Amino acid sequence: AMEKSYMSVFLLLVALSCALAKEPPKKETKAPKETKETKPKLPQTLSRGWGDHLIWTQTYEEALFRSKTSNKPVMIIHHLDDCPHSQALKKAFAENKEVQKLAEQFVLLNLVYETTDKNLSPDGQYVPRILFIDPTLTVRADITGRYSNRLYAYEPSDMPL
Amino acid sequence: AMEKSYMSVFLLLVALSCALAKEPPKKETKAPKETKETKPKLPQTLSRGWGDHLIWTQTYEEALFRSKTSNKPVMIIHHLDDCPHSQALKKAFAENKEVQKLAEQFVLLNLVYETTDKNLSPDGQYVPRILFIDPTLTVRADITGRYSNRLYAYEPSDMPL
Repeated sequence: AMEKSYMSVFLLLVALSCALAKEPPKKETKAPKETKETKPKLPQTLSRGWGDHLIWTQTYEEALFRSKTSNKPVMIIHHLDDCPHSQALKKAFAENKEVQKLAEQFVLLNLVYETTDKNLSPDGQYVPRILFIDPTLTVRADITGRYSNRLYAYEPSDMPL
Repeated sequence: AMEKSYMSVFLLLVALSCALAKEPPKKETKAPKETKETKPKLPQTLSRGWGDHLIWTQTYEEALFRSKTSNKPVMIIHHLDDCPHSQALKKAFAENKEVQKLAEQFVLLNLVYETTDKNLSPDGQYVPRILFIDPTLTVRADITGRYSNRLYAYEPSDMPL
């Protein structure tokens, strides 16, 4: 039991370091770096590396509209380009064929900038953070990951979840 | 003078037919068609054909953030994939080298779905519609096109403007 709780604490620390890095908010962590040295690859894609073969929506408004009309739930992934935990989750998400297949059942949106909808941050704004919205446009705050203090954080090892 | 006013009326009619097609709102005109026959090209790009070599922001929130931090004004293009006037404007915009060069001076955003910010529709929601926001995050409702009843509508021939 002792070992298990050590493990939980370790996982929590790993999962939260990006979130913590954002408080207090610093320009450097909030914005993806885009100096002359690191211009985005052109043309930029909506998938941003989370799965080029999936159909991604551009904005929250589009995702809600498509959910309503297609009767599919929305999956919203909040992430940051310079957050190693976001990057690790992205890699696991993009490379896992089952996850990619499952993702087709959702209206997909990945966001680097927070929306103004507070329903999307039931326990704060941190990354990586995944939320689901059902076709009645209700944010499913009850669908959570494994971490009790950052309910919507996921780890690469959480893919089966 | 007679000829000129006929011409204006004609141009107005041309400019407004997309906008009118949207009232009353129909699902078919509001959403870009995405049936099994017409899946989007994958991976989808943020430029959506308005200039693959330009840097486009994904969301309104991102555009505002980048404007503030870069001190560049925002140019927001509202358009629809199944609006021929949007398409014509897009073609003119993408193919005009001077416009593309000028566009680099802006934080760029092209949207198919309206935001919730009413400041972006000072005289209603219609397409194509271009609005500018200065780095103090003020929507410049004073920057208008040539049409008095749809202030922010532009035509392919308006490129010099």
